[in-house]
Amino acid sequence: MKIVITGGAGFLGKRLAKSLLTRGRLTGPEGTQEKITELVLFDIAPDIDIVDDRLRYISGDISDAETVTRLIDEETASIFHLAAVVSAQAEDDFDLGYRINLDGTRHVLEAARALPHAPKLLFTSSVATYGGGLPDVVTDATAQVPQTSYGTAKVMGELLVQDYSRKGYIDGRSLRLPTISVRTGLPNKAASTWASSMIREPLCGRDAICPVSEATPMACMSPAKIIAALIHAQELPAEAFGPTRSLLLPGISITAGEMAVAVERHKGNRQLGKILWQPDPAIQKIVDGWPKATQSARAEKLGFEKDDSLDEMVRAFIEDDLEDQLALYTD
Amino acid sequence: MKIVITGGAGFLGKRLAKSLLTRGRLTGPEGTQEKITELVLFDIAPDIDIVDDRLRYISGDISDAETVTRLIDEETASIFHLAAVVSAQAEDDFDLGYRINLDGTRHVLEAARALPHAPKLLFTSSVATYGGGLPDVVTDATAQVPQTSYGTAKVMGELLVQDYSRKGYIDGRSLRLPTISVRTGLPNKAASTWASSMIREPLCGRDAICPVSEATPMACMSPAKIIAALIHAQELPAEAFGPTRSLLLPGISITAGEMAVAVERHKGNRQLGKILWQPDPAIQKIVDGWPKATQSARAEKLGFEKDDSLDEMVRAFIEDDLEDQLALYTD
Repeated sequence: MKIVITGGAGFLGKRLAKSLLTRGRLTGPEGTQEKITELVLFDIAPDIDIVDDRLRYISGDISDAETVTRLIDEETASIFHLAAVVSAQAEDDFDLGYRINLDGTRHVLEAARALPHAPKLLFTSSVATYGGGLPDVVTDATAQVPQTSYGTAKVMGELLVQDYSRKGYIDGRSLRLPTISVRTGLPNKAASTWASSMIREPLCGRDAICPVSEATPMACMSPAKIIAALIHAQELPAEAFGPTRSLLLPGISITAGEMAVAVERHKGNRQLGKILWQPDPAIQKIVDGWPKATQSARAEKLGFEKDDSLDEMVRAFIEDDLEDQLALYTD
Repeated sequence: MKIVITGGAGFLGKRLAKSLLTRGRLTGPEGTQEKITELVLFDIAPDIDIVDDRLRYISGDISDAETVTRLIDEETASIFHLAAVVSAQAEDDFDLGYRINLDGTRHVLEAARALPHAPKLLFTSSVATYGGGLPDVVTDATAQVPQTSYGTAKVMGELLVQDYSRKGYIDGRSLRLPTISVRTGLPNKAASTWASSMIREPLCGRDAICPVSEATPMACMSPAKIIAALIHAQELPAEAFGPTRSLLLPGISITAGEMAVAVERHKGNRQLGKILWQPDPAIQKIVDGWPKATQSARAEKLGFEKDDSLDEMVRAFIEDDLEDQLALYTD
């Protein structure tokens, strides 16, 4: 079977590709496990270091309908649509945000609909779709009231995935991802960047800035659990989803203070970098508007796993990513 | 001030136009009452019998961006965006549904954003945006899980109105309308048509079909209360809305059986038509998926009025519309 990953050069795209290539098989539109014969990574600027005979890189702009029509051809049985402009960028450039996050998604859905079969399609949404006065725990029943253009376009994408699936044009599913921790790479301008950098940077001997108070909680999930969830969602039969193909993933709620303490616990014989507590009211305000905790009875019933503990998340970073991360600074 | 009503030849558009012309004034973007100098009714096929110096008819296709850009010009201070393809039609023609209900709405928002000022914009959404396993009473906190393309595009429109407002491009507000009862005109293919026809038709001496059981409830609102709500929403200051510009309107919950009894109560000396109970499982299923009752603390706090009783709704139909309705059959 042929699989297409949009945003294939991104943090999740690359990890998903490696995981799929290792598995070698995925459930196809017929509901049976099929051998992965071709894996296409599509991105605006592919920059991927994975070498595998089954892999093909295609560079292009997802907001161009013709490019997407060529990308998603008759052979395509399964699509992971991860491509997106992130929150801060969509706030800075309103038109770009909607062109990529809404029009790009519509192009993917239309290309999928045009196929003679209904391909499987996994869409990554986000807990950033919630906002505007939330309950302490966000659940399956919580209304999405996004307060950013990014969150708005993600809800719109979910709605379209649901409607195209209801009509039988695709066999879609959308996952609302919690904040990823520990993300590798460098700190960025995302208001959530501290949820990774205050674990990652000190373990690499570098100082990290925390712009929020110690008591600030965040619903988090490790990269490994998120990749497992993306694949599990694509494996589930359509009937499992019920009246909506959208699903909230269960993050675990961790405060900034708990992260700081966890880093100390996993110090080992490392010379840790410091955590610089530099309160930033603007960032505190954004983060306060996000879900503090999430709980999804549906996701648990469907067999999605959450992380056991913050310690396990820190350990996974040390085991899987610390060496590569350290190499990044010396490149 | 200049006002534009899209869908201006429709059932609500015409009534709204008459009501605005009678008022003569409306609160503009500056927050002060201004004299209505021009009222433009835009529709695919204007067919309007209102004569007034301030009124202008423009016929055109809302899915054509250039048409909409010409329509919403620098003079436009206030927009009522009512144009839409209805539920059954959007189910029959997927592309037409999204072209009118989503792309049309985006054209209106883009034309408004291009103006040097941020115009007021009222968008009509619907309780058909709810579905997929609802609580007994739909409230402000209920998540929208639409089960039709019409409902999907209406939620998307609400999200865009909210985001364009948040960015300051427009001063928007969206109302989720309950089922309108009593609608005038002829029974149509809408699954909700019985909620008007079983009151309207017998009072005109004609038989009406009721395809649902006597116990089936529906959240309803009279045309007069809906028109009052559209104007009230446009009059309110932006700050009144809080974290979302979307608002659920409070319908009153009425069963089919209660409607049948109410018609008898208002028989007077009329020769009533009969109600033919002809259960239709397909329609029963659709209607069972809609809100049975709605309750909005926010709308009540903001001063939106609901109907006092079914009797008042029947009386309003008899007083305001029965003569015109009878004339319709003899035309």
